[in-house]
Amino acid sequence: MQTSLPQHPIGVFDSGVGGLTVVRALMDRLPFENIIYFGDTARVPYGVKSVATIEHYTQQIADFLLRQQVKILIIACNTMAAVAADKVRAASPVPVLDVIEAGARNAVARSASGGIGVIGTPTTINSNAYARAIHRLNPDSRVYSQACPLFVPLVEEGWLDHPVTRLTAQEYLKPVFVESIDTLVLGCTHYPLIKPLLSDITGQRLQLVDSALSIADQAAQLLQDSGLANPQHELPDYQYYVTDLPVKFQTIGERFLGRSLNRLDLVSL
Amino acid sequence: MQTSLPQHPIGVFDSGVGGLTVVRALMDRLPFENIIYFGDTARVPYGVKSVATIEHYTQQIADFLLRQQVKILIIACNTMAAVAADKVRAASPVPVLDVIEAGARNAVARSASGGIGVIGTPTTINSNAYARAIHRLNPDSRVYSQACPLFVPLVEEGWLDHPVTRLTAQEYLKPVFVESIDTLVLGCTHYPLIKPLLSDITGQRLQLVDSALSIADQAAQLLQDSGLANPQHELPDYQYYVTDLPVKFQTIGERFLGRSLNRLDLVSL
Repeated sequence: MQTSLPQHPIGVFDSGVGGLTVVRALMDRLPFENIIYFGDTARVPYGVKSVATIEHYTQQIADFLLRQQVKILIIACNTMAAVAADKVRAASPVPVLDVIEAGARNAVARSASGGIGVIGTPTTINSNAYARAIHRLNPDSRVYSQACPLFVPLVEEGWLDHPVTRLTAQEYLKPVFVESIDTLVLGCTHYPLIKPLLSDITGQRLQLVDSALSIADQAAQLLQDSGLANPQHELPDYQYYVTDLPVKFQTIGERFLGRSLNRLDLVSL
Repeated sequence: MQTSLPQHPIGVFDSGVGGLTVVRALMDRLPFENIIYFGDTARVPYGVKSVATIEHYTQQIADFLLRQQVKILIIACNTMAAVAADKVRAASPVPVLDVIEAGARNAVARSASGGIGVIGTPTTINSNAYARAIHRLNPDSRVYSQACPLFVPLVEEGWLDHPVTRLTAQEYLKPVFVESIDTLVLGCTHYPLIKPLLSDITGQRLQLVDSALSIADQAAQLLQDSGLANPQHELPDYQYYVTDLPVKFQTIGERFLGRSLNRLDLVSL
């Protein structure tokens, strides 16, 4: 059984490139922490796979990161968090944070009316994991969920502020607007990239909860409480692992990360 | 070394559900042939993977179908055809047809001016495989290619005749319309489902080549020439194998196939 030390890295993982929005939020919030990112690009997207397959793949990745001596594990993929977080948590020797728990906490803290909307991929929405997480925190809350399957491909196309994306968002949000909610959780790590467009459409009607920012806050709190914050004020190490190197990964990855992607290595599980 | 017999099935494969448009065309064109379909739904989409990964997966599937004694192999996935058809052909004891060769043949036969447009996924277009196949058949032809990454997710969302799909198609076809071409190849097995919408936008300007129909014609010719056409006039067997059973596979699959999906089995490679 390994012992976690403050200089050990934070392990962040996702089915592909989306979790880099979480890495970006962590870099901004915790600028002295070493981070290892794992993106399962050979098997992305998870959102269309069965529960058994997602559980199996998720545990493989968690095991890989634990072998790299990470001090906490962050599940940055909403699909994996929805389907496999409990199993990973049960088997992990280090604390496990996940984007759903983080987003739910933030939404419950911020919603005045208790009416909370959630948008995400079909698998995340079908799993009902946000509704469960929100109700565990506040049994009186009312959750309205809406799957938005086209947002991920639109973000990956780079149409972040495009009439097609705007029209798609208006279509998906139409049923959301008639619900009495005051808060909308962006339940997918791709969505922070279209937050300006979504914010423009929702206007004053809804406050948006970005789960990448939420989990960075939660990680900061956890490291402080557990004495595992890295006390050094030197340049940290950032290491990225992927299972395949698709065309445009670098381009799309840097758009998500907001900076250069160095130390990118290919591994197989 | 196996000997092919007329009663042996035709093997059709794709990375996921898209190749069912080819199966549908085969059922209509060759109603007495037994067909085995293989969709690698656990690892879909191939379009974002590296060349080495696509080659490896494609050969695994071809080997699986050859063990089922198929009399011809049909690569119904444009990405696999673009990247791995030559390798599969070199290693196969039975004839191998692929959607790119079939679409290219049909386009060259039908284009009066020699100006041919091709639309497909980014990987298919980046591979330049259609341009190569078309030039092998007619060195004087001029090919204009355009990647349309959002068409696959739009088709899978079921927005076959939706303002968002129309706006997306208008955006993608804008540069195509300024080229002097008379024929447009639908270089992706998902695209036959939006053929009415595309046809509506292109109007009289372009004739559309559907590679599912093209390959069904080519398969019919091959079976006749080689004496491998099934002479029986009984109900044929249709068997479908997938590597994962995602949510909505049945629904989406039946939309692609245009009829019920029976005998659907899960296998792992």
